[in-house]
Amino acid sequence: MECWFTDRTETFGIVCRVTGILHRERSPYQEIVVYETDQFGRMLVLDDVVMTSEADEFVYHEMMAHVPLVTHPSPRRVLVIGGGDGGVVREALKHPSVEEVRLVEIDQRVIEVCRRHLPGIASGFDDPRVRVTIGDGIEFVKGVRGEYDVIIVDSTDPIGPAVGLFKAEFYRDVAGALAEDGLFVAQTESPFFDAPLLGEIHRSLREIFPVVRLSLFSVPTYPGGLWTLSLGSKRHDPLTCPLERARGLATRYYSPEVHRASFVLPPFVQRVLE
Amino acid sequence: MECWFTDRTETFGIVCRVTGILHRERSPYQEIVVYETDQFGRMLVLDDVVMTSEADEFVYHEMMAHVPLVTHPSPRRVLVIGGGDGGVVREALKHPSVEEVRLVEIDQRVIEVCRRHLPGIASGFDDPRVRVTIGDGIEFVKGVRGEYDVIIVDSTDPIGPAVGLFKAEFYRDVAGALAEDGLFVAQTESPFFDAPLLGEIHRSLREIFPVVRLSLFSVPTYPGGLWTLSLGSKRHDPLTCPLERARGLATRYYSPEVHRASFVLPPFVQRVLE
Repeated sequence: MECWFTDRTETFGIVCRVTGILHRERSPYQEIVVYETDQFGRMLVLDDVVMTSEADEFVYHEMMAHVPLVTHPSPRRVLVIGGGDGGVVREALKHPSVEEVRLVEIDQRVIEVCRRHLPGIASGFDDPRVRVTIGDGIEFVKGVRGEYDVIIVDSTDPIGPAVGLFKAEFYRDVAGALAEDGLFVAQTESPFFDAPLLGEIHRSLREIFPVVRLSLFSVPTYPGGLWTLSLGSKRHDPLTCPLERARGLATRYYSPEVHRASFVLPPFVQRVLE
Repeated sequence: MECWFTDRTETFGIVCRVTGILHRERSPYQEIVVYETDQFGRMLVLDDVVMTSEADEFVYHEMMAHVPLVTHPSPRRVLVIGGGDGGVVREALKHPSVEEVRLVEIDQRVIEVCRRHLPGIASGFDDPRVRVTIGDGIEFVKGVRGEYDVIIVDSTDPIGPAVGLFKAEFYRDVAGALAEDGLFVAQTESPFFDAPLLGEIHRSLREIFPVVRLSLFSVPTYPGGLWTLSLGSKRHDPLTCPLERARGLATRYYSPEVHRASFVLPPFVQRVLE
């Protein structure tokens, strides 16, 4: 018998052959599953949506961490909202200037499951620079003023508890939680399938941040492959920042050249942002 | 009842909801199907593999045509091998210097089906500059010496009749069919799923052409999303060619900036080519 996992909308999706189910539970927030697959190794799936896999996690985690952390000239304090698998934390710790990575994850069980079943991704949690808060990232940023150099919003899709992470009110609170030259990034879905949402996000961000940019990268386990991160910055610009400090990073997808190229948008994507 | 089309390997693939089947036949070469879908409009499927769809065909066809035709300073004679849907022909005709586009397609039925069911893609066939030859592209290039400025190999996956289009012997014949400053491109699959093939192709090309490059682009209906074209050139280099002549092209994915950015390779892709 063959077993296939499907991650799809009403009209389109991906399928992946599953060779084993390492873990399955329903937490207070979502169904958490870790599949074993031939194509991608172990795969974390929340409410039937692929979050990450051993084979392609490097793309998303490197881009989400290094694009903002290289854009900022000297990031010391970093806040990660969501990201309970630990992949963004692991990448953030590669930057020598970073003194603290605070992770605010709503679902403690995601962290525990990933530490057990995806240890290569969750490898940063024992670093002394990492502090974990279990709680709602939306509430957390409301209580912080001017503290973080970089905030990284590593959320699920905009359904259920993550809906608020795609709203203008949240972005204003993020701006308030950033230091005076701080910047943030958020994963903002697919330019092919989520164009209206992406346009709305960018119109909101342009009212809050002087520098707003979109970066593209390719994650094969996300439907359509092409994915986005949106960046809002009070001062530093990822298009003009010096990239020398990125030279020493051990990476497989990110590089200084990829950093710049990821902001080159096809005309159809430019039009989405207008 | 819901009907879903699946395009997958042994381990991974895409699924797309189908709302109608406009055409289905078995030609002497393959099964040809045109589905109607909500997500992508009409979709051409050969032997259960997506070739193109109305919604995303612009990405592939623009990149396959404009990358080589802008790299060459003045392309007059263009040969398209495969590409029976006509999308590459349509894009090639946008270049004012082009005097002839010769299409060599093995399966006449693909052309006929696309002219009927995908007229927006097949719109170039009635242009007086277009000449269609029904035949095997591998045999065709053997009989041609120094004639073409640009050759575009728009093939199916390397199975069945297309296997030979991914071989060194074919690339040598292509080099022979090119003018002394000619260049060619071929679609060369996914860097995530076809890395060994891609490495082999590039090692072959480097023995034949002084300039060999890889360009990346994102096609949501191709598994994994990230796709490649490989370029072999006798003289002109897509990394240094002037891009001013691309400014006037009416495109949705290709632009001069996208042209350059598409050749920026993540480190994991660079390693595939070594």
